Amino acid sequence: MGACIEQYIGGMPKLWTDTVEGHRHAVRAAVLDAVAVLVAEAGFSGVSMTRVAEHAGVTRATLYKYFPDVETLLAAWHARQVGEHLSALEKIRSDAAGTGRQLQAVLEAYALMLYDRPGHDAPAPALHRGTHMDHAHEYLEAFIADLIRTDVQEKGVDPAMNPVDLARYCIQAIGSARSLSSRDAVPGLVSVTVSGIYT
Amino acid sequence: MGACIEQYIGGMPKLWTDTVEGHRHAVRAAVLDAVAVLVAEAGFSGVSMTRVAEHAGVTRATLYKYFPDVETLLAAWHARQVGEHLSALEKIRSDAAGTGRQLQAVLEAYALMLYDRPGHDAPAPALHRGTHMDHAHEYLEAFIADLIRTDVQEKGVDPAMNPVDLARYCIQAIGSARSLSSRDAVPGLVSVTVSGIYT
Repeated sequence: MGACIEQYIGGMPKLWTDTVEGHRHAVRAAVLDAVAVLVAEAGFSGVSMTRVAEHAGVTRATLYKYFPDVETLLAAWHARQVGEHLSALEKIRSDAAGTGRQLQAVLEAYALMLYDRPGHDAPAPALHRGTHMDHAHEYLEAFIADLIRTDVQEKGVDPAMNPVDLARYCIQAIGSARSLSSRDAVPGLVSVTVSGIYT
Repeated sequence: MGACIEQYIGGMPKLWTDTVEGHRHAVRAAVLDAVAVLVAEAGFSGVSMTRVAEHAGVTRATLYKYFPDVETLLAAWHARQVGEHLSALEKIRSDAAGTGRQLQAVLEAYALMLYDRPGHDAPAPALHRGTHMDHAHEYLEAFIADLIRTDVQEKGVDPAMNPVDLARYCIQAIGSARSLSSRDAVPGLVSVTVSGIYT
């Protein structure tokens, strides 16, 4: 009975709100998954409210309750994708702990994300200028700077410049993966990028 | 008398058209110089048609005959500046011929241009998206790729990647000079950038 009382705290059954929350979350995820599929298939121009609704298996009316327009939808999809990429980089860092190749592993994964990004041919530049991108960029910069500081400590090397400048340099340099002539060139780009950062 | 006839070819006295052309050129130059001064003094927001006319010593009516609005004015100033920068890099390349340090010299000058650019705090991003910038970017990319090919031949070294990929990498990496923590760090950035490009 104590559990029942607890469930009603906040004026609504906890299980009920959990279910509603869970449902909203599932619909949102299905919609953003549909966006991902459509972007991968036909680029940003392939995303319309009608097609997203069809692919997600929801009505247009439901879709409009969650996202008022295509721009909001694309921004939400992009923010989720950026978040997933940052988590993936964190995991790669952990997995490579102790190998002495954390920085290379993270930069290579980042370069492949940039090379493989959907909408390669017809980018939607507005997506890359939102607040979520500013935050993601700051986060990535701090993350790479921290990796460099760790390397410096663990390996007893000296950084060629201060770690924040080096992190910005790495991110910019790896940014050229976007226009690299082939995917096979990614490891070479990473080697060239990191080769001079410790003296 | 032969010279006189020649002067009238084209229906207008050659000397007269020369003078008009020269005058137009001088006014244009004075106006763009005024823009440069105002941008350096107070950033892009400090540029108005009234202030440019004052600084250039022309009437507002004259200024409007040359440039219909501030955007056109800023675009013309920026295109001229980009052209001057590219010429300066060409000269630096020639001056460093035979030193084996052409690439470093050019990249260092480019990094300083980016670090020292006016409007550092309040950039006018639209300026960097015009057709003249696409051309300038292609030109710079071909120029750096050619420098790398020359280095490869002269020094008998092997490039770590194809020269175009390396040129894009160099331009991106040096791009981090825009947010470098100090001007003194520029040579370090150039060293880090170039250290891995030949194997």
